[in-house]
Amino acid sequence: MTLSVYLSGEIHTDWRDEITTACTEAGLDVAFSGPVTDHAASDDCGVSIMGAEPNKFWHDHKGAKLNAIRTRRGIEQADIVVVRFGEKYKQWNAAFDAGTAAALGTSLIVMHGPEHQHALKEVDAAALAVVETPQQVVQILQYVLDGTLPT
Amino acid sequence: MTLSVYLSGEIHTDWRDEITTACTEAGLDVAFSGPVTDHAASDDCGVSIMGAEPNKFWHDHKGAKLNAIRTRRGIEQADIVVVRFGEKYKQWNAAFDAGTAAALGTSLIVMHGPEHQHALKEVDAAALAVVETPQQVVQILQYVLDGTLPT
Amino acid sequence: MTLSVYLSGEIHTDWRDEITTACTEAGLDVAFSGPVTDHAASDDCGVSIMGAEPNKFWHDHKGAKLNAIRTRRGIEQADIVVVRFGEKYKQWNAAFDAGTAAALGTSLIVMHGPEHQHALKEVDAAALAVVETPQQVVQILQYVLDGTLPT
Amino acid sequence: MTLSVYLSGEIHTDWRDEITTACTEAGLDVAFSGPVTDHAASDDCGVSIMGAEPNKFWHDHKGAKLNAIRTRRGIEQADIVVVRFGEKYKQWNAAFDAGTAAALGTSLIVMHGPEHQHALKEVDAAALAVVETPQQVVQILQYVLDGTLPT
Amino acid sequence: MTLSVYLSGEIHTDWRDEITTACTEAGLDVAFSGPVTDHAASDDCGVSIMGAEPNKFWHDHKGAKLNAIRTRRGIEQADIVVVRFGEKYKQWNAAFDAGTAAALGTSLIVMHGPEHQHALKEVDAAALAVVETPQQVVQILQYVLDGTLPT
Amino acid sequence: MTLSVYLSGEIHTDWRDEITTACTEAGLDVAFSGPVTDHAASDDCGVSIMGAEPNKFWHDHKGAKLNAIRTRRGIEQADIVVVRFGEKYKQWNAAFDAGTAAALGTSLIVMHGPEHQHALKEVDAAALAVVETPQQVVQILQYVLDGTLPT
Amino acid sequence: MTLSVYLSGEIHTDWRDEITTACTEAGLDVAFSGPVTDHAASDDCGVSIMGAEPNKFWHDHKGAKLNAIRTRRGIEQADIVVVRFGEKYKQWNAAFDAGTAAALGTSLIVMHGPEHQHALKEVDAAALAVVETPQQVVQILQYVLDGTLPT
Amino acid sequence: MTLSVYLSGEIHTDWRDEITTACTEAGLDVAFSGPVTDHAASDDCGVSIMGAEPNKFWHDHKGAKLNAIRTRRGIEQADIVVVRFGEKYKQWNAAFDAGTAAALGTSLIVMHGPEHQHALKEVDAAALAVVETPQQVVQILQYVLDGTLPT
Repeated sequence: MTLSVYLSGEIHTDWRDEITTACTEAGLDVAFSGPVTDHAASDDCGVSIMGAEPNKFWHDHKGAKLNAIRTRRGIEQADIVVVRFGEKYKQWNAAFDAGTAAALGTSLIVMHGPEHQHALKEVDAAALAVVETPQQVVQILQYVLDGTLPT
Repeated sequence: MTLSVYLSGEIHTDWRDEITTACTEAGLDVAFSGPVTDHAASDDCGVSIMGAEPNKFWHDHKGAKLNAIRTRRGIEQADIVVVRFGEKYKQWNAAFDAGTAAALGTSLIVMHGPEHQHALKEVDAAALAVVETPQQVVQILQYVLDGTLPT
Repeated sequence: MTLSVYLSGEIHTDWRDEITTACTEAGLDVAFSGPVTDHAASDDCGVSIMGAEPNKFWHDHKGAKLNAIRTRRGIEQADIVVVRFGEKYKQWNAAFDAGTAAALGTSLIVMHGPEHQHALKEVDAAALAVVETPQQVVQILQYVLDGTLPT
Repeated sequence: MTLSVYLSGEIHTDWRDEITTACTEAGLDVAFSGPVTDHAASDDCGVSIMGAEPNKFWHDHKGAKLNAIRTRRGIEQADIVVVRFGEKYKQWNAAFDAGTAAALGTSLIVMHGPEHQHALKEVDAAALAVVETPQQVVQILQYVLDGTLPT
Repeated sequence: MTLSVYLSGEIHTDWRDEITTACTEAGLDVAFSGPVTDHAASDDCGVSIMGAEPNKFWHDHKGAKLNAIRTRRGIEQADIVVVRFGEKYKQWNAAFDAGTAAALGTSLIVMHGPEHQHALKEVDAAALAVVETPQQVVQILQYVLDGTLPT
Repeated sequence: MTLSVYLSGEIHTDWRDEITTACTEAGLDVAFSGPVTDHAASDDCGVSIMGAEPNKFWHDHKGAKLNAIRTRRGIEQADIVVVRFGEKYKQWNAAFDAGTAAALGTSLIVMHGPEHQHALKEVDAAALAVVETPQQVVQILQYVLDGTLPT
Repeated sequence: MTLSVYLSGEIHTDWRDEITTACTEAGLDVAFSGPVTDHAASDDCGVSIMGAEPNKFWHDHKGAKLNAIRTRRGIEQADIVVVRFGEKYKQWNAAFDAGTAAALGTSLIVMHGPEHQHALKEVDAAALAVVETPQQVVQILQYVLDGTLPT
Repeated sequence: MTLSVYLSGEIHTDWRDEITTACTEAGLDVAFSGPVTDHAASDDCGVSIMGAEPNKFWHDHKGAKLNAIRTRRGIEQADIVVVRFGEKYKQWNAAFDAGTAAALGTSLIVMHGPEHQHALKEVDAAALAVVETPQQVVQILQYVLDGTLPT
């Protein structure tokens, strides 16, 4: 049975591509989903379709709700939610997604560098795995699917 | 029927006291809960009870899980979860709590200053109210309980 | 055990008072809840607490979400949801509340005059009782609580 | 993964066709469902299969329950429920469907003209998008599926 | 904490009184609920409050739905559902209540004489106890509450 | 999308064949499931696989639980549960299945002759359709799937 | 709000008394529940009330199901489930209770000596705290309730 | 529809192969899943991917959580969970899986020798079948799928 994996969080590096490419190369039966990673589209989708807003709050509100249609569906259909926290920005939406996954009882993998360890302790405590690199995520998916460990 | 309100997030100002005091003065039937706000106790509770850990990750892990016993119960029993984002720190646990509340279908009120508006747009989009001050939270609780608006 | 009853819908006649008064006189152990019935407060609560909005859509949006905090809690805690459709207005929020109650598996009583029979057929089909008067609601509550029928 | 979309509400214009045709033309992977839109069949299905009823209430009751078999299944299996309110009629079943979708935590898109803005404020407040035209629904579905915005 | 027990099924003997009286005498902290046991009231409640029906099907339909308001609430709030099958009648509502309790994951005790053993095998298979007498129910409640067995 | 239908109840006439054959002839996309209808196998399956029991109660208990594996799965995966009550026998398992379906919120169709109308009023009250013949079930499935009524 | 704690597992030492006594002395607002700890009563309750069984399997079966009425209720109503594994015996019911609590999303505290560490790793991995002594459980309950750590 | 079966518990004999081979030979439409049965990989998977731990507790903790990603998914997607208790070891994870399956309402088959009968009485009491051999599991799966009993 295909493993459904939602890739949440940081959108400024190519970590999603690293994971999906490596899984394809390894022949793993995984279906990936995730948020829209085009930053401009993600910010402006609401007003682009439903009309401009002079107030930035409502501009963002329209967009965030539209993105939620995609995000919710992805998280609800996932067997595993991977959340990556990058080095910069507040990334509160990543932590929000992690809280959603935890509350739904979905398996959570958190990825971040050691500099965020203390600040992410509550999120890490809800995870079934805490890793630093995309390669580790691929190794986990491989192990979950066929029991093979990296050599 | 008593209204149950969980006060999540920032622990460095006295916003919780402002809210609880004002509600008491107004005679509102509200039962408040929240995390342990003694920062040192919250950080060290795990090792204090269950033994020291040389690795900071596990030191934090033990504490974060212990705190989760209290946090989960408070959020699950709440009619309303109020999450405040302060001016400093990453506050990913606050966003995590907001995601939990949203996934449980619990009414969410988010409190933050205008400087965080864009970064919190996904969290705000899941809220039923977005405010800046404790006074506004009190006004909302009063309105929810008896329909009275500020004069 | 106290019976929890949420009284949803039309707010321009005193049907709620008729029901609560008659239940009190009959000594029935019922706890009533319902929306804020002060029309002006209900319309303006959002902007009154969270600041004015030049656009009527967001003015209403802020208010409707604030009212949802009270409405959701009332419906979720109710054993029975009574929804009254009056003679005038669109009353889509009443039908929305009925849909919510039905989806939650909560017992639904619908009250309306014969002129709305055909238009409300889907709502009536989800109800356990369809009545025309507040007296009938009181009779139902009495019967549910102690098995007594009107003489 | 195919996106499941339920199209609820108004049955007197060809808005469903506009949406499904445009999605097909755009090659979007969407599976649509909806109520029976043959008004006469929808009204008379109950008595047609299960026998005539002299009383209009039961005539409608039999039909509404039969339609509920289809409606419930469609809404429960949908990722997105789109509810359109037309210019005429009470359309309480549309608002009822919206309440059902909201209670199930299903993403809700509401479509209506500006003349209904105030009357639909509670329904709009539960939606992730509020639009006026079928084209906007298509644009949303396209964005949700592949992140592309209209040019 | 008070033990909530719903007493479903046969209404022609005084088995409910035997159980409640014995529990009171034993000082057990049990709150009992059950259907309306006045057969005539139970049959006619619908038409008595909501108007006569010439067709017996709808006469019964109105009554059965009204009774469902009480029955559902009792079963949903119960820790234990006791269902008694008497010697006569079809008693399909008793088996229906047992199916409801089983689907809700509520502890089920079934009471019946040996003559019904084979016919009730599916119902018994879903039960945590199968007994023949009210005294056995009382003994079970006593054991569940304080661990005391009959001497 | 294929419609899943579970056919519960009476196993002594060929009503299941009538329905499945007619649906096949009509080209309806329905997947049927149901209990094991070989009466002897159904009664003896438990002891046949897991060893003889001298006590009839445990003989039946083993079998009933084994059958429950199939029954539960069928009912839980069904969009519609059809329950037929025949002219003879207690058929408490049929009413039990109906209670299960109702508690799960699954659409319920009840089939029985007029002689059982009063005794089945609580079960009928939980149904979305009450019919007398397999042909009516087929007509309902056709209508639910494509909106076509019998001519 | 009173904290509900279920004390599962080993019944041959007085660890439950140690915890409840210490909590009473500390004035903590905790309501404890647990299985019947009278070993003989627990083993024989089924046959004692519902009649002897010559086959040990059914003797035990009747008793285990009766005990399940109490156990299920206690675990389902608990905020925290504490499971203690003693030095001897298989204690599979303790691990079964832990699995139940974890599946329900209830906070789990596991207590055992270091000799069982490896064998209990899956159970420990589902827990929010792993301790060795009753005193540690009391310290945790105190911290969860009022934020006080041992001095 | 394919039957999903999760094979939990003992990993030192080839009972899983016996079941899957026999089902394939019988042409049964069953999809099997289960834990990683390579004992060394299962013990070391956590540290192998996420880094060594000097403390055995955390070594095991990392591994147990990683295995939980696979185990949870398998159990949650299963129609039937088969749990085998072998002759040796504590096997608390097997009982934990059984508790999880029971709490989720998933059909449970327990397999063990007579020497464990008394110690497993609570687990057996939650099962729909208790067997001793893989052949019996195959016979059950065959009966559940097509109603055929062993000859």
